[in-house]
Amino acid sequence: MSISKSQIKLIRSLNSKKFRDLNNLFVVEGDKLLQEAIDSGWEIDSVYRKEDIGEELMSKITHLSSPSPVLAVVKQREFLIDSTPSKSELFLVLDSVRDPGNLGTIIRIADWFGIKQIICSLDSVDLYNSKVVQSSMGAIFRVPVIYTDIHNFIKAYPYKDSIYGTFLDGQSIYSESLSDGGIIIMGSESFGISQSVESLVKKRLNIPSFAISNGGSESLNVAVATAIVCSEFRRLQIPLSNALK
Amino acid sequence: MSISKSQIKLIRSLNSKKFRDLNNLFVVEGDKLLQEAIDSGWEIDSVYRKEDIGEELMSKITHLSSPSPVLAVVKQREFLIDSTPSKSELFLVLDSVRDPGNLGTIIRIADWFGIKQIICSLDSVDLYNSKVVQSSMGAIFRVPVIYTDIHNFIKAYPYKDSIYGTFLDGQSIYSESLSDGGIIIMGSESFGISQSVESLVKKRLNIPSFAISNGGSESLNVAVATAIVCSEFRRLQIPLSNALK
Repeated sequence: MSISKSQIKLIRSLNSKKFRDLNNLFVVEGDKLLQEAIDSGWEIDSVYRKEDIGEELMSKITHLSSPSPVLAVVKQREFLIDSTPSKSELFLVLDSVRDPGNLGTIIRIADWFGIKQIICSLDSVDLYNSKVVQSSMGAIFRVPVIYTDIHNFIKAYPYKDSIYGTFLDGQSIYSESLSDGGIIIMGSESFGISQSVESLVKKRLNIPSFAISNGGSESLNVAVATAIVCSEFRRLQIPLSNALK
Repeated sequence: MSISKSQIKLIRSLNSKKFRDLNNLFVVEGDKLLQEAIDSGWEIDSVYRKEDIGEELMSKITHLSSPSPVLAVVKQREFLIDSTPSKSELFLVLDSVRDPGNLGTIIRIADWFGIKQIICSLDSVDLYNSKVVQSSMGAIFRVPVIYTDIHNFIKAYPYKDSIYGTFLDGQSIYSESLSDGGIIIMGSESFGISQSVESLVKKRLNIPSFAISNGGSESLNVAVATAIVCSEFRRLQIPLSNALK
């Protein structure tokens, strides 16, 4: 199998969100990731292997700093918001998360902790950015991620008592009683949760610091904070994997 | 203030561990990080500002993809292992963590959760790697990180019942009773905890998965797993910051 000049041009253009959206495509690199895309039923547009097209062309089309042995062009998928959520399901809302590595890591965490859907504000980093795809380690193919007006999404959520957000002045997550399901809102790396969204939060949570030194770290990385909060929501539940045994 | 050719050469050489160790120096970039180094009493060797030496020279000496307005050369520090640990103190042992972003994030987590010292195996990524320094967000200046033979360190630890490691077949961290202090061992991104170290672990822990889909993520990122485990150890304690009020 070979590759044409126009295919090279197309694949390179998929480095930008504009052309990803125009073509409704994105790039997946590496055998393991490609296999996970296939296993999860994503539609594969085309696949290029180093053994077929050569190392030079491979490094022309890669979106990574060093090319993988395989690069696939995959069709984007559109997920719909779950409009009749069950009370026991957890949703994650991300308010302006901008760093692709953080979003990828958060999707991997969401996969681990059985988050039903991730709802991103419209100014969040693009799901199909190569760094998001790679750092999700395949979780991107399993967890539905939806971009929408998060203010409207939260307003439409039926279980008003179960809308949680993390704040510096919140109640310790270790003492607040947490429901099985609900919405967990995480703010941006720099500015936290925006004001219009903050007004919809019912329970203000905080991860307390145990720093020994004065002037310890001011905050945790947003992916790390997401992991701690998700873990705390799940700790009293029986893992689904055990429940099915 | 200006900068000489030999200074430029020296700073560029500090990108490699060999020359960092030879000169006992490393590079810190950005005003906030530099301030944290000063606040924590680290010895500053020299400081270069864009307004003084110009943009071109600044981009010559930076270790980042885009230069900060300030770059400092800082003296390395050597920390000693706490040979008489208190029973209530937590130590983190890292077995071959190789990714600089992961180590930096773990140091930030350790700072947040009041870890007394981080003990790294000799094949772990170097503390003074620029990516470790930057991703620690200043926590590197507050948490002592020591490189040593971790097998010997664990063997010498006096509270044998409080040596914890994370494994795929461990007991759920949510049901295992955890002591106030102890050693938490985290394994490498690819291979987990090495066999010789595994034999010293008294309590095998596991972070259970709650994945909805079949074939969910196989593992969590090592920094994310560290955060969840540290949070679980701390959750029943009163934050020091509150205790001092």
